[in-house]
Amino acid sequence: MKVIPLGISSGRPTLSRGLSAIAIQLEGVLVLLDCGEGTQWQLARAGLRPTSKLESVFITHLHGDHLTGLPGLLGTMTLENRPAPLHIFGPVGIREYLEQMRKLALVRPRFELRIREVEAPGLLFEGAGYRVIADELVHRVRAFGYRLEEHDRPGRFDAEKADALGVDGPSRGRLLRGESVAARDGRMVRPEELVGPLRPGVKVAYCTDTVPCDGAVRLARGADLLVHEATYLDSHVEEAHERGHSTAAQAAEIARQAQVKRLLLTHFSPRYDNLEGHLAEARPIFAETELAEELTAVELVPAG
Amino acid sequence: MKVIPLGISSGRPTLSRGLSAIAIQLEGVLVLLDCGEGTQWQLARAGLRPTSKLESVFITHLHGDHLTGLPGLLGTMTLENRPAPLHIFGPVGIREYLEQMRKLALVRPRFELRIREVEAPGLLFEGAGYRVIADELVHRVRAFGYRLEEHDRPGRFDAEKADALGVDGPSRGRLLRGESVAARDGRMVRPEELVGPLRPGVKVAYCTDTVPCDGAVRLARGADLLVHEATYLDSHVEEAHERGHSTAAQAAEIARQAQVKRLLLTHFSPRYDNLEGHLAEARPIFAETELAEELTAVELVPAG
Repeated sequence: MKVIPLGISSGRPTLSRGLSAIAIQLEGVLVLLDCGEGTQWQLARAGLRPTSKLESVFITHLHGDHLTGLPGLLGTMTLENRPAPLHIFGPVGIREYLEQMRKLALVRPRFELRIREVEAPGLLFEGAGYRVIADELVHRVRAFGYRLEEHDRPGRFDAEKADALGVDGPSRGRLLRGESVAARDGRMVRPEELVGPLRPGVKVAYCTDTVPCDGAVRLARGADLLVHEATYLDSHVEEAHERGHSTAAQAAEIARQAQVKRLLLTHFSPRYDNLEGHLAEARPIFAETELAEELTAVELVPAG
Repeated sequence: MKVIPLGISSGRPTLSRGLSAIAIQLEGVLVLLDCGEGTQWQLARAGLRPTSKLESVFITHLHGDHLTGLPGLLGTMTLENRPAPLHIFGPVGIREYLEQMRKLALVRPRFELRIREVEAPGLLFEGAGYRVIADELVHRVRAFGYRLEEHDRPGRFDAEKADALGVDGPSRGRLLRGESVAARDGRMVRPEELVGPLRPGVKVAYCTDTVPCDGAVRLARGADLLVHEATYLDSHVEEAHERGHSTAAQAAEIARQAQVKRLLLTHFSPRYDNLEGHLAEARPIFAETELAEELTAVELVPAG
């Protein structure tokens, strides 16, 4: 799985940072988290192909900088004759937004939009090889974070041992499905003798915009990667709270509590030209912290 | 006056071309023609300051690629504490679009939007040092082209001759206002003896999206610069007509009929990587044809 930040600026773009969006590239499928203005350019610059690959879009909240790239992206996929339906998720209001865009003829997709408004925490979507879970964040407006989990994969099959025991092709399929089969000598072979343990899929949590909150910890619990907003530095911790945002140190504290493997900071206030301060404040709390960089993929490999 | 193309692609962006928008930089004031997605970046890249300088926005028609940069631009100017009202013009529907954006809380400008829907050809707006005239274009939806005219400036004052005649400061002001004054020797001096002819302001016409039409010729008549769409080449002339667009040659024919000084082609279909064909087809019809280039200003100097 590749996690590709497309826009890392908060509120308004800077000359070097775009508005919120993250692409997640899975096997043959693309997922988009938020869709700020300019997202369609960034997808193209990243060499990604939303028209053929994008299966689902998850909008965290209805602030323009997380959303206004959607009409343009839908328009471009229409011009490129996208055939497949697109799943779009977001807080209540996302349906009305797209409906108004359609009424004004600003969005006229010739493919199906399957819009679902997120109303409560829980399993939201089963996609092609992944599922997405939503949980509540705490911002100035209703906001949801998302956790994307790759499906677990079957354990590794010990082909050498299977050969030695004389287990044939059809029997191998049955072993992988959890059944016991007979070996060449008649002995029953149990699946766990030839099939390793389930290999858990990669898990990524995305939490923005939010103050530090329990929902973020729940979403991030044990994840391979937490992408968390870090709009401010400690010197602006009060402004962060008032505006419904987090500091870099608060993001790191969430990562520590949730025992994630890695933390990727994003959604930086345009006031910070240099982001070294974010790293400096986060790493003492959570060492495996990195800064999101636009178009720089974070590659995640399943354990085992 | 500087005319600065910000986006020259038709329908969807390419890796090297953005969506429709043109900035016009006048003395101390900025005017925007169309506002496709990404316009706020291009304004920043061009070193322009919409928050302090942008006085008016003219939208040609309500297709997303000419409009969807507006919410983001309004949002950014709000974050930057713009105080001044902003004039926004466009076909019927522009008010509803901005109203819906406001209802959904996607646009919450803390400065006044003075929205006026363009319903008929004629003088539309008197700005700071310029006026804007609208006329009908012919597209798949209602579309207007715009003609921006700098105010004429007073003729040059012959200070040397005034000194010789002994015409003092207050008298010079009266001459500039068209009154006769007494010279040192008592003789009456008429304004035309010391004040040259009115110097006409620069005139620019902007015509997109449209098939070749009378409205475009009327808008462009005698202009210093016509910016006209040239979505297609001659080989796609039928598709151009069906889709409500023009070819490069048709744009050149409009320029010739309207007797403009220069023609700037824009709004190119993404199918054309190279735009030399557009020049090759337009120049035999109208020699003073150039291709719009993003962030490359066309400087226009008033005659006289």
